[in-house]
Amino acid sequence: MTEVVIAGIGQTEVGEHWDIGLRDLAYAAIHDAIEDSGGLKPQSLFVGNMLAPNLSNQAHLGVLIADFAGLLGIEAVTVEAAGASGGAALRQGYLAVKSGLVDVALVVGVEKFTDKVGAGVDAALATTSDSDFEAVQGLTLAGQAALLMKRYMHEYQVPADGFAGFALTAHANGANNPCAMFRKAIKLETYTKAEMVSDPLNMFDIAPNADGAAAVVLTRRDVLPKDFAHPLVKIAGSAAASDTLALHDRKDMLYFDTAQLSAGKAMKQAGIILDQVNFFEYHDMFSIYAALQLEAVGFAIKGKGWKLAADGEIRLKGRIPCATMGGLKARGFAGGATGVYQAVEAAAQLRGQAGANQIAGAKYGLIQSMGGPASTVVSHVLQGLN
Amino acid sequence: MTEVVIAGIGQTEVGEHWDIGLRDLAYAAIHDAIEDSGGLKPQSLFVGNMLAPNLSNQAHLGVLIADFAGLLGIEAVTVEAAGASGGAALRQGYLAVKSGLVDVALVVGVEKFTDKVGAGVDAALATTSDSDFEAVQGLTLAGQAALLMKRYMHEYQVPADGFAGFALTAHANGANNPCAMFRKAIKLETYTKAEMVSDPLNMFDIAPNADGAAAVVLTRRDVLPKDFAHPLVKIAGSAAASDTLALHDRKDMLYFDTAQLSAGKAMKQAGIILDQVNFFEYHDMFSIYAALQLEAVGFAIKGKGWKLAADGEIRLKGRIPCATMGGLKARGFAGGATGVYQAVEAAAQLRGQAGANQIAGAKYGLIQSMGGPASTVVSHVLQGLN
Repeated sequence: MTEVVIAGIGQTEVGEHWDIGLRDLAYAAIHDAIEDSGGLKPQSLFVGNMLAPNLSNQAHLGVLIADFAGLLGIEAVTVEAAGASGGAALRQGYLAVKSGLVDVALVVGVEKFTDKVGAGVDAALATTSDSDFEAVQGLTLAGQAALLMKRYMHEYQVPADGFAGFALTAHANGANNPCAMFRKAIKLETYTKAEMVSDPLNMFDIAPNADGAAAVVLTRRDVLPKDFAHPLVKIAGSAAASDTLALHDRKDMLYFDTAQLSAGKAMKQAGIILDQVNFFEYHDMFSIYAALQLEAVGFAIKGKGWKLAADGEIRLKGRIPCATMGGLKARGFAGGATGVYQAVEAAAQLRGQAGANQIAGAKYGLIQSMGGPASTVVSHVLQGLN
Repeated sequence: MTEVVIAGIGQTEVGEHWDIGLRDLAYAAIHDAIEDSGGLKPQSLFVGNMLAPNLSNQAHLGVLIADFAGLLGIEAVTVEAAGASGGAALRQGYLAVKSGLVDVALVVGVEKFTDKVGAGVDAALATTSDSDFEAVQGLTLAGQAALLMKRYMHEYQVPADGFAGFALTAHANGANNPCAMFRKAIKLETYTKAEMVSDPLNMFDIAPNADGAAAVVLTRRDVLPKDFAHPLVKIAGSAAASDTLALHDRKDMLYFDTAQLSAGKAMKQAGIILDQVNFFEYHDMFSIYAALQLEAVGFAIKGKGWKLAADGEIRLKGRIPCATMGGLKARGFAGGATGVYQAVEAAAQLRGQAGANQIAGAKYGLIQSMGGPASTVVSHVLQGLN
């Protein structure tokens, strides 16, 4: 059985990179990932990107980036599944190596929001919802998340500051991540006094759109020397699932079927149960997403995901540490790069290189890359091999 | 060794489908492909699409189509590599089945040009070239192809009607393809009198942008019963390669490195040499592309690709039949669906179901899906197993 491992990781700071373009940003992460892998030579490049055709007028990113990174000649494609593009690209890289036909695959997630500003960004993001039935009505992703959150709070009697735990945890963890956009812990007051964006969603329930790139080098374990430079991280489980694009088509919009389904498949493949997962990187583009993911995966019962956060159980020393390097909220939401950032951060945890945020003895990490309100979820179980 | 086969094929007519949307179009092809496969149940959906985020304000096509096709729950992603999106999606489906983790993969290529008209379409197409260095100067894909053709005609002393053979062959073959946009043979006079678009490129050197969808169902040979309903077609070789996105960055812009490289790899994997290839489906978005592909793959020496067409050697009874169902020129250029149309048409040839255009005794077909002027080329060798 072919074992697929992460042999190299790289990432840029998440933030506003006005001065450089998509290809430069991608290359910065690729350079570091290849160096970290000891100079492995990729045969295939999988680019996770969400919105470049709209935000930067640039499609065909595979060859654009392969050329700029000095990798001309190799296979290069873009993989898109909205906010799950990074996780989907990681999975394609995994499948390519698993097939036995590709020895070394490079996965890079890249997004550049600052090429456009204002309403242009909201319109671009809305192309990832159902254009004919949702976007056309003027529904933005934030508006949709607000509706979802309002329903949740009504159903489960959640207090006004019930979701604060997600932002508090994210910012506390982001403070120690040199690549995070926001590196400052916040107080409860900061959350409760935050400006309302779309009632009940406030500024601190929303991850900031930002530029960034992250990369991983994947290979088969058996092609690496036994004395490889650093601990290896195995992709022990990988799965993706789809739900309706439009939220109103769901039987129960307060349950993220795809988060449950794909996590279950990935854990089954990895041969583990939920109790063995040492940390969870969710897709907290909106705090309500994080709550619903915690419930669907099984860390909390239905209606109690917010409580897990409120009780401090998702902090680094809690029952199930989440967003260990700041998550989308504090690291920043770099679109299609997000799923690859999760892989880079999880790999660092499993290598024991997470610094002040290290989860002691972490062996298994679950990461979930999400497109829309769980319309796409791609789940990976990563396993430390040291 | 896992053998990956095409178990089902489906396609819509190529043309102007004003009355239906992306998801309906994709579903029509998917329905036929799944029915043709005897009702196989796919676990993964790979969507080849080039421009929907721009032309239809719709990203996240994977789940949109999976839902509409009644396949909710399965893995679903979009694969993009400009004009090669269809071939790239086919390759991802192939890798997924080859990995052993996916038993049945569905690949659908879909494009809807008629959601936009005029300059909007040219601008969308230009996002597939180098936005920062080409598109920003106002260079369209047709303008770029015209420059390439002019240089070629100058270098190799090609007469004004030198490229007519490509259009004549395409239209002759398209006449017998019920899914082709243009089903009428043309005379040499039609070509020589055609309106000039971008000198020396005339109307008949350019494939028409059009709507369409094509689908294939891939599976492992060993999961099918021995008495399967129709002959199987094996994906015997698969490879992709990248060149610079910007044409001006090439050492020799009159040689399509990636067409040579990826065809060579695919044939090597299939264990065949060029002489064994019974027909070739090139990416004749512009006639100059077809000429350069014939040369790079090795069917003609440098500077003589046009002559092969002029001498009738690419016709159905010629030395190497090309565009056997009309190619991009007569079938129509349905963007990211194109590579999947090629697979469907080649599979029909190898099953002996190509009707009046059947290549007698065809055993191996080479198909090349191309993004930009060979910035991306994805090559597949298909083998008939009857």
